[in-house]
Amino acid sequence: MKKLEHSFIREILKVASDPGVISFAGGLPKGELFPVGELQAAFSRVLTEEGAAALQYNRTEGYEPLRRWICDRLACESGLRATPEQVLITTGSQQALDLLGKLFLSPSASVAMEEPGYLGAKQVFRMQGATIHPVSLSPDGMNPERLERVLEEHAPALVYGMSSFQNPTGGSYTAAGADSVAGLLRDSPALFVEDDPYGELHFTGASSNLKIYSRLEGNAFYLGSFSKVVAPSFRLGYLLGPGEAITQLVRAKQASDLHSSHLLQMVLYRFVSSPAFEEHLERIRATYASQRDAMVAALRRHLPPEIGIRSPEGGMFLWVELPEEISADSLFERAIRRGVAFVPGRHFYEAGGTNALRLNFSNVSVEQIEEGIGRLADAFAELLTVTA
Amino acid sequence: MKKLEHSFIREILKVASDPGVISFAGGLPKGELFPVGELQAAFSRVLTEEGAAALQYNRTEGYEPLRRWICDRLACESGLRATPEQVLITTGSQQALDLLGKLFLSPSASVAMEEPGYLGAKQVFRMQGATIHPVSLSPDGMNPERLERVLEEHAPALVYGMSSFQNPTGGSYTAAGADSVAGLLRDSPALFVEDDPYGELHFTGASSNLKIYSRLEGNAFYLGSFSKVVAPSFRLGYLLGPGEAITQLVRAKQASDLHSSHLLQMVLYRFVSSPAFEEHLERIRATYASQRDAMVAALRRHLPPEIGIRSPEGGMFLWVELPEEISADSLFERAIRRGVAFVPGRHFYEAGGTNALRLNFSNVSVEQIEEGIGRLADAFAELLTVTA
Repeated sequence: MKKLEHSFIREILKVASDPGVISFAGGLPKGELFPVGELQAAFSRVLTEEGAAALQYNRTEGYEPLRRWICDRLACESGLRATPEQVLITTGSQQALDLLGKLFLSPSASVAMEEPGYLGAKQVFRMQGATIHPVSLSPDGMNPERLERVLEEHAPALVYGMSSFQNPTGGSYTAAGADSVAGLLRDSPALFVEDDPYGELHFTGASSNLKIYSRLEGNAFYLGSFSKVVAPSFRLGYLLGPGEAITQLVRAKQASDLHSSHLLQMVLYRFVSSPAFEEHLERIRATYASQRDAMVAALRRHLPPEIGIRSPEGGMFLWVELPEEISADSLFERAIRRGVAFVPGRHFYEAGGTNALRLNFSNVSVEQIEEGIGRLADAFAELLTVTA
Repeated sequence: MKKLEHSFIREILKVASDPGVISFAGGLPKGELFPVGELQAAFSRVLTEEGAAALQYNRTEGYEPLRRWICDRLACESGLRATPEQVLITTGSQQALDLLGKLFLSPSASVAMEEPGYLGAKQVFRMQGATIHPVSLSPDGMNPERLERVLEEHAPALVYGMSSFQNPTGGSYTAAGADSVAGLLRDSPALFVEDDPYGELHFTGASSNLKIYSRLEGNAFYLGSFSKVVAPSFRLGYLLGPGEAITQLVRAKQASDLHSSHLLQMVLYRFVSSPAFEEHLERIRATYASQRDAMVAALRRHLPPEIGIRSPEGGMFLWVELPEEISADSLFERAIRRGVAFVPGRHFYEAGGTNALRLNFSNVSVEQIEEGIGRLADAFAELLTVTA
């Protein structure tokens, strides 16, 4: 049996699920915002009007109208050009990562990844035998000097990054950052994997046109997800890439799970192609923005000014950096005793990050944020007293 | 890019989807029998009563009540003992195969497989780098002498078989056949993978207690599917095995697609745990049995008596063996011109099987069977004239 890494995060989430704990640890969208009524109506219509087709085996590539809608949406929101043949519907974004790994990673392959970076990506690539080479994040995106070195020294097959409201830091690539990554990868054999599950959750009005994919066409994949904008339980995401690679990925998907549920794809399509979707998105953005505001304000109020708080312009996460000598693990121990949870930053690093914390603000109320950040500040004050 | 096998079957199915063609080629359950109304009611109830929970991220292992129901059902129908901790809900049976391959197959591994055997299993194991070693089927199940030789010569990590109403032959293991396979594997390092998507589709009254899994506890996995008894589009199956292996498989699944849709699991559970499920199963069994009867009768009426027709006692497929010198591929060419399709047997073989055909009887009406078998017989007569 191959040895698989144990997930620490799972343990943290288990502790955090205690009803007495205010959890900033998870990465869940807010359940109260799910468009239950609209989805219920869509299920009813799809089953009444095309029940037998919706319930049958179907094409691996995905439901055609949904693939077309994705192209139109991306063109309109991000100026990203693609044909439906370049879109593969996946069982969540996570499956897109699995399929890319299956196709492009041999057991001795290397993957370059943002650090701090998304755990689910590390987990799947590592399980496929790849070695992860971290590339530190600068405020503009991946550090180009580090990326260049990793490309030279390790010849990674894939380079993985989240361009918007990254998990865990909430940061986004600037135009300069995207340009320099694209510049380095344009003539490289490495393929860029742009994971963008949070791109639609922008709080500042305009959507970002900043897709690295557009700058690297033919040499990149773009991953989208409906988990954060509709519902995780639909397990629907998509993968955009060069047509020839998509053909291969369709075969890999066929061997993996035949196809993703067409019933769910048809229901999703009815919802996202209706005017209700835009209203729903606006509601999520406004709610999350106000929760971010509350969290940033509470942190500033309760914590000493030297603590680094990065206020993100979208997404679901906020990143806090404590003074270097302070351990987020020690803070976690004290915080959990006071009934508040978060994920210590080191879990998103190969090495280091011991003084950082990831705070989720999407799945808590403003009241819970006030109370929880208060508890966190108390735990922090206690830790300072002890270590002083 | 790793090279992936092209699927011939896909091409056949494309040709067979022409509206003028009567297709015995696919492997689809009958759409008219899907319990659309019951499922619609269950969606409505689940979303009304527990919408936010049903739409959220959830446990990789699966929905607890469904896991428990599976154990109760298997105990009751097949005397198979298992605890919910031994059950992992998968995104269709196909994903169970993918996860088993990920955990147990190194790129140079071997897999022993029934021949003729299920293509989807070959596809996934081969994509994972394994070499397939065929074990011919006798009327009792896998040929024990062949299996013994493959175990000795190739030390396969996995041994794959369908114990009931096999795809493609429709055949089932006898008690003696199951005993001899279990006897050979009991002290072998090879793990038996018992794939049983058709087990519930028995036409003769009693369900078969003949699970090889029960004879090999701790050394085998059992795979079930809801695609044939509820709806393929739910993409729900399950994998039963030793608790320790399930823990590892849960991690592999987490990296593959996080979890299967809990909304669909909750809806499925409401349906299968209601009295409507048993009535629904009886309706499928009766319909498929009458279609099998019609196909066997039409084949006997239209084809010369020396042609081998195996009438299965359940499932969705029927296997026909032409005289050895006759090519099913040549028959296919003539058949498709007359508007009838099937899958030539050689696709289920590593080598050989050129004179066999797989006929699907689940997704055609009795009238289509009469007409289609008539056309097939005309194509056969024409082929005899030409080759004579």
